[in-house]
Amino acid sequence: MDPILTLTTDFGPGEYVGAMKGVILRIDSTIAIVDIDHQIRPHDVLHGAYVLYSAVPYFPSAAHVAVVDPGVGTARRGVVAVCEGGLLVGPDNGLLMPAARRLGVKEVREIRNRDLCLPDVSSTFHGRDMFAPVAAHLLAGRKAREVGPVIRDPVDLDFGRPRRRAGALEGRILTHDRFGNLVTNLPRKDVERSWSAGDRLAVTLGGYDLTVPLVRTYGDVPAGEYLATISSSGFLEIARRERNAAAELGVSGGVPVVVRKA
Amino acid sequence: MDPILTLTTDFGPGEYVGAMKGVILRIDSTIAIVDIDHQIRPHDVLHGAYVLYSAVPYFPSAAHVAVVDPGVGTARRGVVAVCEGGLLVGPDNGLLMPAARRLGVKEVREIRNRDLCLPDVSSTFHGRDMFAPVAAHLLAGRKAREVGPVIRDPVDLDFGRPRRRAGALEGRILTHDRFGNLVTNLPRKDVERSWSAGDRLAVTLGGYDLTVPLVRTYGDVPAGEYLATISSSGFLEIARRERNAAAELGVSGGVPVVVRKA
Amino acid sequence: MDPILTLTTDFGPGEYVGAMKGVILRIDSTIAIVDIDHQIRPHDVLHGAYVLYSAVPYFPSAAHVAVVDPGVGTARRGVVAVCEGGLLVGPDNGLLMPAARRLGVKEVREIRNRDLCLPDVSSTFHGRDMFAPVAAHLLAGRKAREVGPVIRDPVDLDFGRPRRRAGALEGRILTHDRFGNLVTNLPRKDVERSWSAGDRLAVTLGGYDLTVPLVRTYGDVPAGEYLATISSSGFLEIARRERNAAAELGVSGGVPVVVRKA
Repeated sequence: MDPILTLTTDFGPGEYVGAMKGVILRIDSTIAIVDIDHQIRPHDVLHGAYVLYSAVPYFPSAAHVAVVDPGVGTARRGVVAVCEGGLLVGPDNGLLMPAARRLGVKEVREIRNRDLCLPDVSSTFHGRDMFAPVAAHLLAGRKAREVGPVIRDPVDLDFGRPRRRAGALEGRILTHDRFGNLVTNLPRKDVERSWSAGDRLAVTLGGYDLTVPLVRTYGDVPAGEYLATISSSGFLEIARRERNAAAELGVSGGVPVVVRKA
Repeated sequence: MDPILTLTTDFGPGEYVGAMKGVILRIDSTIAIVDIDHQIRPHDVLHGAYVLYSAVPYFPSAAHVAVVDPGVGTARRGVVAVCEGGLLVGPDNGLLMPAARRLGVKEVREIRNRDLCLPDVSSTFHGRDMFAPVAAHLLAGRKAREVGPVIRDPVDLDFGRPRRRAGALEGRILTHDRFGNLVTNLPRKDVERSWSAGDRLAVTLGGYDLTVPLVRTYGDVPAGEYLATISSSGFLEIARRERNAAAELGVSGGVPVVVRKA
Repeated sequence: MDPILTLTTDFGPGEYVGAMKGVILRIDSTIAIVDIDHQIRPHDVLHGAYVLYSAVPYFPSAAHVAVVDPGVGTARRGVVAVCEGGLLVGPDNGLLMPAARRLGVKEVREIRNRDLCLPDVSSTFHGRDMFAPVAAHLLAGRKAREVGPVIRDPVDLDFGRPRRRAGALEGRILTHDRFGNLVTNLPRKDVERSWSAGDRLAVTLGGYDLTVPLVRTYGDVPAGEYLATISSSGFLEIARRERNAAAELGVSGGVPVVVRKA
């Protein structure tokens, strides 16, 4: 495996991320550390899971450390998901699982071997004391079986299955990006089976009823207009060209959405 | 060329930047990826162009990928600017050109060869599907001529030429930095030809008339005072020591500025 | 020494950080550049010092460049702190010293040798023109004694010693993290000598009187409850589970805090 280690956290830049990078490089200074995101919304496990899901499949084989971890220091387990396309390391709260399934999960192991952790594991910062060193040791040659036992019941989280009812697709908003574009959990194949580019869609969302064209890209509508398109992660997305739809509608992750032909 | 690849985008940290990094490392895992900025103001091509212009000349030969791309997926072209000091890769909307001129442009090529892109080029994310892989392939040994034909008419953008009128220099604000320091497009040589350190300048800006000293550095005035100085990128800058001039004046990129001796 | 160079600044991502990275890689393109934090609160030297103090000890031997530098271009000196566990490079305003003491200071040298700087040292950006190139040259093999003379009087800054009075510990808030958790300057050993996990503490802070349990970790209280715990950097921390205590109390670095048994 290439010694590539990615980081995805809700820590913001700063002392926490800095300490994790130090721990990693002290174990193996040849590891290339790649920042994916340290601005996951605080404690928003779904947001973190979505970012991992969207980014991780593009990497060559690598170790991906992710920490969005409101349960740190409690009985929640730490896990390594061993996948076809790499390793995911983090808390057992579902954060890793959508990405793991997309890479192809081979097994999930509980982190039990304290020899792969820092000597003193704090109760508040397992990113530094457990997840970073475990991932670095695995990249440096330790075997996954040394981490701890295989578990059959990792906590799962999925993006939800959309429902089809009376000609409509019902789902929810997964997240929004920096532009305020709202990503739903309605997958491309369901959308393409139902509608075609150029169709006008009726979208019910956060108390609003919008009628928007289904288009290939943002530039297919005038600036300021709402639109629907397939996001780069493969889900239906509701956006407003060169404006911030999430802020203007006051909508964020978890909100239900219903889409039908207008 | 050193296998160094820089990234400058308006994506914010997250899934988009993560996916681009994965694509690059999958093509060549020895590339050193360097983040310049992912917090270009959304869709603000001038801001992105200024950041590239200010940072890129300090690098050894490298490939610089930049994406501020409101026209993604429309007829706008993707380009590679082949320069004396490296390559710039991104949308053909002017973003790359001030930096390219500063490095010394040899030729600009349109990206036509889909073999250098991901197999499916989406309509919404050319950063991942086109610009990142083209740049990585060029660092890994592919030739610029394989990208596509030379074009003579890349979209240009410049910072504007200041006008001299009635003893005043007239220009505009290019951008502001995190401290709120306002960078104008008045170049050092025009400033130094007109005034000397210690002169007091009358600055008209966003409806305000300020009288400020032209000084060497921020610490030459008391905390809280306005000042003018030559920015580290070589333009006249209007700042307020240890305060945020941009926020307090409500001024940002594009606003006209007139400067004369007080 | 591993050619690892970390960066900690208040510049935000952008042209300043980009230029520093370019300067470093032009001197030695094999240096691994590691971002610790570019979002130190502007001009907040104490915040920067705390981030360095918390992160730097986890690294293998490395060069750490830090720039929070309101006095740039004035008579304030630039320094290199040569330590057991690496080098710290930055302004002589105390920023480096808490981390340097933690690493084990061997000597502090003033940067005088302009051959190790860029040819033109600006008055506003020593990060790019002095600190980055000096650190890169030291990683690339130049000797610390070439930098300039040893100085005996570097500007110092410490986190303050808590006072014990009438059964209470009196100190101050050092900083808060992205979650709004408030880190005090009351060290673990003083806390553990005074109280035990499970004790209820009376905390006076920013005009508020809080009664909070001393717990091992956030998850030991219900969501929304205040708590005290030992932070991962080894100081008493006041937090509100899955909420932002700093924003809700309106408290930040420097504010006095008094803690006693409730």
